[in-house]
Amino acid sequence: MNALQERILKEGKVLGNGILKVDSFVNHQVDPNLMDECGREFARLFAHVGATKILTAEISGIAPALTTGIHLGLPVVYARKSKPITMPDQVYLTLAPSHTKGRMVELIVSPEYLANNEKVLIIDDFLASGQTILGLARLAEASGSKIVGIGALIEKNFEGGRDALASLGVPIESIACIKSLDDGKITFVD
Amino acid sequence: MNALQERILKEGKVLGNGILKVDSFVNHQVDPNLMDECGREFARLFAHVGATKILTAEISGIAPALTTGIHLGLPVVYARKSKPITMPDQVYLTLAPSHTKGRMVELIVSPEYLANNEKVLIIDDFLASGQTILGLARLAEASGSKIVGIGALIEKNFEGGRDALASLGVPIESIACIKSLDDGKITFVD
Repeated sequence: MNALQERILKEGKVLGNGILKVDSFVNHQVDPNLMDECGREFARLFAHVGATKILTAEISGIAPALTTGIHLGLPVVYARKSKPITMPDQVYLTLAPSHTKGRMVELIVSPEYLANNEKVLIIDDFLASGQTILGLARLAEASGSKIVGIGALIEKNFEGGRDALASLGVPIESIACIKSLDDGKITFVD
Repeated sequence: MNALQERILKEGKVLGNGILKVDSFVNHQVDPNLMDECGREFARLFAHVGATKILTAEISGIAPALTTGIHLGLPVVYARKSKPITMPDQVYLTLAPSHTKGRMVELIVSPEYLANNEKVLIIDDFLASGQTILGLARLAEASGSKIVGIGALIEKNFEGGRDALASLGVPIESIACIKSLDDGKITFVD
């Protein structure tokens, strides 16, 4: 069992509806050293894919994407969910359903930072239904870039995201892969 | 001149109304190694203040707060701007004007992660008017915690934030302190 799995067992809270609260070390309070360790692991897992850029979605993807970027020496782009005034008028924009917000959210990337022919490694905090990551993949493809790998800190295996992403044909890695949250009990895939 | 200052001169864009666009290495695309270097510098500058927790505001404060947390070995809490479903009903909430959004935004922290008697180091990307940082200080004080230091990647000296924060009586450090953006030219404080 790795450090992230141990921490999930110790502090993760199952809230029902398949929601796992990890606000004490990932989503509101962040454990920087745990994130650094996960970033190092992603860097190891994706060392061979030849990525030129890391893409994530604000907000909670930023921490693991950043530490992965530190260990791979790659720039990180985080898709915005609202367009800041510093962004140009022409952007890449797609919609994705948000599990925790219960509505569609925008994912926006400036063409300034996602150019043609980038090899994009997507890193996010959760892989659940895969819809946010599919949205990021659409943004990357719209820019003429190619997805070369997908990493998530925590995969909820029972929500089918891995199948939804299979058509992308790239390696998918998670550091803690959860088989079930039934009856409030966290069970990892062996 | 340090690495952040050099990067600001090279890639920063003055958009008018005192807005400095640093989207290529801080706010939309992030340079993880530059952030790591800035985090190391904040850790050095604040090594003596005895902080027990780092507090920042989503979204763009997360990267420098996280790297500072890595180098100080401290947890990072980022104030949310909307309340996620994983947060309890009772929260610390304050309002602060957003320079780039042109309206008031909420800053919300769960009492789960900001407890009595924490010694809080605030880290953010910008120190301009100081209103966001004052908002974070109010949240910390509401929780019974004490601010022990304030660090910003980029200070816009001409917007008076340092004076606004003086009453907190804590060390304030910035890595790139800008004296003027007049006529589209970036001038640092010596």
